[in-house]
Amino acid sequence: MREVAVVGVGMTKFGLSEKSNVELFSEAAMEAIQESNIQPGDIQALFLGNVFGGFEEGQVTLSAFAAADIGIPYIPTTRFEGACASGSVAIRDAFIWVASGMYDIVLAGGTEKALAMGTPYATRTFAMGADSRYEAPTGITFPGVFAMMAHLYAKKYDIPLRKLKEQMALVAVKNHRNGLHHPKAHFRKEITIDTVFNSAMIADPLQLFDCCPFSDGAAAVVLASAEKAKKLTSKPVYVAGVGQCSAPPLANQKDITRIRAREYSAKQAYAMAGLKPEDIDICELHDCFTIAEIAASESLGFFDFGEGSRAVERGDTQIGGKKPINPSGGLKARGHPIGATGAAQVYEIAKQLRGEAAERQVHGARIGMTDTLGADLAVVCNMIFRI
Amino acid sequence: MREVAVVGVGMTKFGLSEKSNVELFSEAAMEAIQESNIQPGDIQALFLGNVFGGFEEGQVTLSAFAAADIGIPYIPTTRFEGACASGSVAIRDAFIWVASGMYDIVLAGGTEKALAMGTPYATRTFAMGADSRYEAPTGITFPGVFAMMAHLYAKKYDIPLRKLKEQMALVAVKNHRNGLHHPKAHFRKEITIDTVFNSAMIADPLQLFDCCPFSDGAAAVVLASAEKAKKLTSKPVYVAGVGQCSAPPLANQKDITRIRAREYSAKQAYAMAGLKPEDIDICELHDCFTIAEIAASESLGFFDFGEGSRAVERGDTQIGGKKPINPSGGLKARGHPIGATGAAQVYEIAKQLRGEAAERQVHGARIGMTDTLGADLAVVCNMIFRI
Repeated sequence: MREVAVVGVGMTKFGLSEKSNVELFSEAAMEAIQESNIQPGDIQALFLGNVFGGFEEGQVTLSAFAAADIGIPYIPTTRFEGACASGSVAIRDAFIWVASGMYDIVLAGGTEKALAMGTPYATRTFAMGADSRYEAPTGITFPGVFAMMAHLYAKKYDIPLRKLKEQMALVAVKNHRNGLHHPKAHFRKEITIDTVFNSAMIADPLQLFDCCPFSDGAAAVVLASAEKAKKLTSKPVYVAGVGQCSAPPLANQKDITRIRAREYSAKQAYAMAGLKPEDIDICELHDCFTIAEIAASESLGFFDFGEGSRAVERGDTQIGGKKPINPSGGLKARGHPIGATGAAQVYEIAKQLRGEAAERQVHGARIGMTDTLGADLAVVCNMIFRI
Repeated sequence: MREVAVVGVGMTKFGLSEKSNVELFSEAAMEAIQESNIQPGDIQALFLGNVFGGFEEGQVTLSAFAAADIGIPYIPTTRFEGACASGSVAIRDAFIWVASGMYDIVLAGGTEKALAMGTPYATRTFAMGADSRYEAPTGITFPGVFAMMAHLYAKKYDIPLRKLKEQMALVAVKNHRNGLHHPKAHFRKEITIDTVFNSAMIADPLQLFDCCPFSDGAAAVVLASAEKAKKLTSKPVYVAGVGQCSAPPLANQKDITRIRAREYSAKQAYAMAGLKPEDIDICELHDCFTIAEIAASESLGFFDFGEGSRAVERGDTQIGGKKPINPSGGLKARGHPIGATGAAQVYEIAKQLRGEAAERQVHGARIGMTDTLGADLAVVCNMIFRI
């Protein structure tokens, strides 16, 4: 297979938007296209992640209309859905079409209007990511699942809950601090541990500031064969490895403090890249809840199991720390337009590896990883990039 | 790229079902797995087409739960949506993952509960395939679009409407006759021209029997590298070529008697296969309405433009005719569980090329083609198979 590189990235401001999914994606796509020094007509195929277009706007077949809006209606376009991992799944798929030699230049990414739905409707709709036969009828929601994860984590590793809550709060504090420097982040304000502790209780022990927001937004990346990439940009960001794995309904998952699908997915990506966790300079991972960042940092192999919470306390995951995590602000501060999140992670890694991340730059970063989690730990997609 | 072959196919009975999308797909998948002489554990990835799981059952992330139900939870799984072409889009994508060398054995297909939704809800939901900004607000539905196509076809080729209606009715008569011999078809009864003419008017000139039904059902195919395929079966059915193309919203499509996305898609498939329309022995194409079969038979290059309706009259498209079309009964009689339809077309082509289609066998068929159309002519996917 051929080498593949990211040649351009784009994203909208994340937050509340009056634009449609198609308009949001076009905005992100045009930025990525301009950055790639190509014309829309150079794009040979479109790969679009979107979870709830039908519920948000009464719109499926979204990939076709997105392509038409960019001015390239008559190309192959495909919509991908893997819950919150949809954007990453679309990009991983775009990768294989270029790697195989079928296409030279493709556009991939995601779009979502998760905030404009309104919270009550969004909560009901998001629950469709959980198993509709066994889980949804129990009434459990995603905050409930991750609250259980936090309790189990505290118990398994014998950490007093109050202590773990402080460690989790530090994840929120760090990600909000990073998001302050991301011009397109949903939230750009610093918070303290007290902000978390004084916020509403959502699902004990998770408080409001332990949870990421719903956001509207889109992000896009242009992928090209290495040969094309070298002609288009002086800073190609190569795809070193990709991985993806699903999981069964939650009731059949043992010990949710470890997410087995993530372990398998990351293993594929590391193997393809010929790299180890210690080789990763920066990681954008799925911090839908603060405990989720801690759990992910362990399953990706950055810290021993049970050590992730202490690593946060030590500052290891800050910009400037040993293993900077979510320099973009993560889902927590950059925001979480579900189908677009994976593409926003790739946007960040590309900016960082090119040294274009300004105040949030992780200096010397040469290898970056993305990690996106969908539904009740049911879909994970990982990608490793290098310059 | 490597050669890829279909090694096994399976499908449920199409019609009304009380089973869930996951249960339907598992049934089809287990049949395909058994036919392939493999175990579920041999499958390395799952590619699933589904359009409206969220509306049908409050279930997205369907591919993960489908894999879990088959007993292979920890594999990469992806859900694809391209309106009624979703199943074909999933299979085309599965093809590239095997052709590229990434996987040796994968499972692909589609599932849908389109009938169990109930017609009023289904009509409203299906309209989400049309552009939500410009088309849906006009109130036009798919029967309306294809009714316009029929009027335009009659005018363009100067065919009296009564004459064209008879020719369209003959499409329905043929496909119902073929469906009679498909044990898993939704409708298994012969009809006459009078059945069509005496049926309710849906969207002038289309009457009830000019329209395909909504169906519940699933279909699945196992794809393998040619090397693996030869070990698994004495009758591999090779993927000779694939194509896919999208189109802009209907208002931006000129002359809908020709479907330009189909012409581009088919051209890709023919080019990859190194074949011409005259090389195709049988074709399963998207007869969502009787006029749709006529238009498709022209855009695929089987007949000159304006000749498709006369070809039906001459019997060219019957089993035993010059160019047998929809020997399975097509969407019209076999049924149309939207996300599963493309996979059911591949099921039929595989059975036909292997000589296992019993009373509906097209004798001597060695090259077969599938054609699936999504939304308002907005997504087309074609595949060519050979033994």
